[in-house]
Amino acid sequence: MPRGQSNFLVQSLRGTSQVFFMENALTGVLFFAAMAYASAVSGVWATTIGAAIGVGVATLTARLLECDEPSVSSGLYGFNGVLVGAALPTFIAASPQLWAAIVIGAAASTVFTAAFSATLTGKWGIPGSTGPFVLTGWLMVAAAYSFGGLHVMGDVPKLASDATSHTLGTPAPMELVAIFFRNIAQVYLLGSAVSGAIILIGVLIASVPAGIAAAAGSLLSLIVAIALGADPSAVSKGLYGFSPVLTAMAVGVIFLTPSPRVAVYAGLATVVTVFVQGALDVMVAPAGIPSFTAPYVLTMYLFIAPKKLMAPHPHGPVADPMIDDRGTTPVSAAGSSR
Amino acid sequence: MPRGQSNFLVQSLRGTSQVFFMENALTGVLFFAAMAYASAVSGVWATTIGAAIGVGVATLTARLLECDEPSVSSGLYGFNGVLVGAALPTFIAASPQLWAAIVIGAAASTVFTAAFSATLTGKWGIPGSTGPFVLTGWLMVAAAYSFGGLHVMGDVPKLASDATSHTLGTPAPMELVAIFFRNIAQVYLLGSAVSGAIILIGVLIASVPAGIAAAAGSLLSLIVAIALGADPSAVSKGLYGFSPVLTAMAVGVIFLTPSPRVAVYAGLATVVTVFVQGALDVMVAPAGIPSFTAPYVLTMYLFIAPKKLMAPHPHGPVADPMIDDRGTTPVSAAGSSR
Amino acid sequence: MPRGQSNFLVQSLRGTSQVFFMENALTGVLFFAAMAYASAVSGVWATTIGAAIGVGVATLTARLLECDEPSVSSGLYGFNGVLVGAALPTFIAASPQLWAAIVIGAAASTVFTAAFSATLTGKWGIPGSTGPFVLTGWLMVAAAYSFGGLHVMGDVPKLASDATSHTLGTPAPMELVAIFFRNIAQVYLLGSAVSGAIILIGVLIASVPAGIAAAAGSLLSLIVAIALGADPSAVSKGLYGFSPVLTAMAVGVIFLTPSPRVAVYAGLATVVTVFVQGALDVMVAPAGIPSFTAPYVLTMYLFIAPKKLMAPHPHGPVADPMIDDRGTTPVSAAGSSR
Repeated sequence: MPRGQSNFLVQSLRGTSQVFFMENALTGVLFFAAMAYASAVSGVWATTIGAAIGVGVATLTARLLECDEPSVSSGLYGFNGVLVGAALPTFIAASPQLWAAIVIGAAASTVFTAAFSATLTGKWGIPGSTGPFVLTGWLMVAAAYSFGGLHVMGDVPKLASDATSHTLGTPAPMELVAIFFRNIAQVYLLGSAVSGAIILIGVLIASVPAGIAAAAGSLLSLIVAIALGADPSAVSKGLYGFSPVLTAMAVGVIFLTPSPRVAVYAGLATVVTVFVQGALDVMVAPAGIPSFTAPYVLTMYLFIAPKKLMAPHPHGPVADPMIDDRGTTPVSAAGSSR
Repeated sequence: MPRGQSNFLVQSLRGTSQVFFMENALTGVLFFAAMAYASAVSGVWATTIGAAIGVGVATLTARLLECDEPSVSSGLYGFNGVLVGAALPTFIAASPQLWAAIVIGAAASTVFTAAFSATLTGKWGIPGSTGPFVLTGWLMVAAAYSFGGLHVMGDVPKLASDATSHTLGTPAPMELVAIFFRNIAQVYLLGSAVSGAIILIGVLIASVPAGIAAAAGSLLSLIVAIALGADPSAVSKGLYGFSPVLTAMAVGVIFLTPSPRVAVYAGLATVVTVFVQGALDVMVAPAGIPSFTAPYVLTMYLFIAPKKLMAPHPHGPVADPMIDDRGTTPVSAAGSSR
Repeated sequence: MPRGQSNFLVQSLRGTSQVFFMENALTGVLFFAAMAYASAVSGVWATTIGAAIGVGVATLTARLLECDEPSVSSGLYGFNGVLVGAALPTFIAASPQLWAAIVIGAAASTVFTAAFSATLTGKWGIPGSTGPFVLTGWLMVAAAYSFGGLHVMGDVPKLASDATSHTLGTPAPMELVAIFFRNIAQVYLLGSAVSGAIILIGVLIASVPAGIAAAAGSLLSLIVAIALGADPSAVSKGLYGFSPVLTAMAVGVIFLTPSPRVAVYAGLATVVTVFVQGALDVMVAPAGIPSFTAPYVLTMYLFIAPKKLMAPHPHGPVADPMIDDRGTTPVSAAGSSR
């Protein structure tokens, strides 16, 4: 089957797999299995159904907007939509308006993906990745507080000053294994270790290096979070691991070509992501929104942006300013040496 | 009269009309009439006087900075200033420091307009639009909390958790007509339906398609806000409509060439703007600032940014990274197919 | 000694001097003397030690990443690191995790400096300046609330509504002189007037115009802050002056070529920075973080971004939109005149 004519279902499943940077419909099937398993355990099916609607609407919107065809076919216009569809029912109670929000949000995520591509990618070479999902998710969950038809579930937002002190401690060995898998499952907002294992298998069948990076990211984030004294309850749920897992994969094997040097760089990025997770949780709390994958997105953007031979602007006059003196030579002492 | 020599008053009135994307001094006169009507009804003239000072100072600053002359002449350096001048007295009580803030803020809005033009427009082709006003307004109102000479009026800021639950309901038919016009009036921060009608007439004499888009945006936002269960008091004041009105105009007829396809796209953008309005109200509340036209600005940027044939970055190595292995081929399984 | 082979210590001292836009190892020595003086007075040495670690780690990271060699040599990869190292122990209590955070943060600041250079500088010609420090500092201090191993010292964060009313007043003459120097010292987060005087001497030996601009910025910010009725306690500590000092230097003599016209422009930028200081203090308070040099960074970006002959986007169709009608002529009334 020629790529351009791959059908809608295959495109949607590839989009589902692209959340972990893969382009593999079978991997997408396994990811849906992981979501379904978690839904079966919890009894809440809105997340899995929302994910299916989200990836379908996002992919369909891309086709209607006549977005770049190979990108649509490979699922690059679908992975933000699947996350929007999985995330909104996780934080907003079911209602007719919720389903409308999923459809509108998934369609918007396609437009936002095109916008991120035209700006971040087009001029700076930075992949938009799950940035459009984070933006859509933040807007939709924050909006829910304003609308009677959308009810936000869970904890009330709080100020940094409300952060409770907690004791440092190391979980039991078997619990550590469960957290290792939950770190992976939480990329799809799932709290189940079994789901995490299914997802890891799905990644491994598409790319062994990517699976190894995911595992390394999960392990490293676990060590750092415990060493810093993160809230044991949050660590246990995998909430300190899912962004670092994505960072380790993105910086270590996907967007940079693997090498020992890149591995060290990706390790630093992964450790930084744990700090950014702790930071963004606090910074977005007053707005009543979760940080989603923003810790990964922000860190990845900053670690991928640097280009070869790039120099910071020297501390001397900039080029072509609107205001200048038209002809005078710069003050030499303050000028740059370059 | 050659364009380059149009006088300061005409340039300022064109700037006033550019808030609704028009370049028509008579439209600017009608907009001032709408402001004056609202001032006469409320007895508060600081807003209308502030608007006059704002557009004058912003235009004058652009002339002193020798900004692009045709842009200054067409009012493109004035419309952010007129909004700064109208907005600050709406949220900050009159004092000598308020008038100083209006002058400084209007002058700064011209610099910010040039900055947005050099970055958003220059590299990405995205119009800055009222982004400089939103930025200036946010900074000035937030700053007022820090200074004894500036007193913020109105509600205290609140957290997302303070959002009160309200019942869904549909206003009476005549009230719906009034809201339709208030949605338009609130672009100029006016609560008067009569002012909205005068403004709509001002738009229509400059461009019938623009007037139709404004009306369609007002109507669509009203339906969506009620369906989502927005606070009836806010809906009644027109606070859920002014950003969608601008989005409908900008995406539907100003920045994209009108067509049935564009109309559907603008419709989606308008609906998204209602969600973004609900979201930003919550997100900026802890800082004690109103969202101003930020819901329009953010949505418009995201819907105008996408360019033809744009592809998201594939999930493969980026170009010219600072860190790489200099020569090894990428990992094929994780690489992109493109 | 050829520039490329200057040793690590000289590079680090130049980095220390680059906080005030200088490239002078002796100036760097004086800056460390200013920090050490403040530490001797307060008895708290963690800030000075942190600064030394910060600039060393940042410079070393740049060398390991093979960043642009002349930039590393001139200290452009070190000045964000020295500020990270000085700032974190100012806001976070000493602990093993604090020292780890300084090392990780300083290394990250080098990556962020490269990222800002590739984006802001590379495409828009805007110097990144201390933006990477602000970002790193915000993330690290916010993260500290999430981790038991990091304890944030000082005031609890608050909402805009908690801003207390205070009386306007003018400090005594000798106090004004002390504030004049504290405004300069606070760039390095120091509360000592003597430290400020040492720093000013350090700047003057490297560049007289830069020293004059720093002094003018300190004076102007003091006048504006008092006229606006800023909190006298904050004014007294120099907290309303350090960002304007940097703005006056950056806009007045470093990034624009000095002239009477540029001096007026820098004066406006300096006044705006005082408003932005008041604003950002309020806006970041709910997240529990200090504004650091963000008021300078934001204002400088906006005042340096404008380029010659730049025109705002006219209110007519944008180029190459993803969505268009492929051939229809634009609506003339809504179109641009340009």
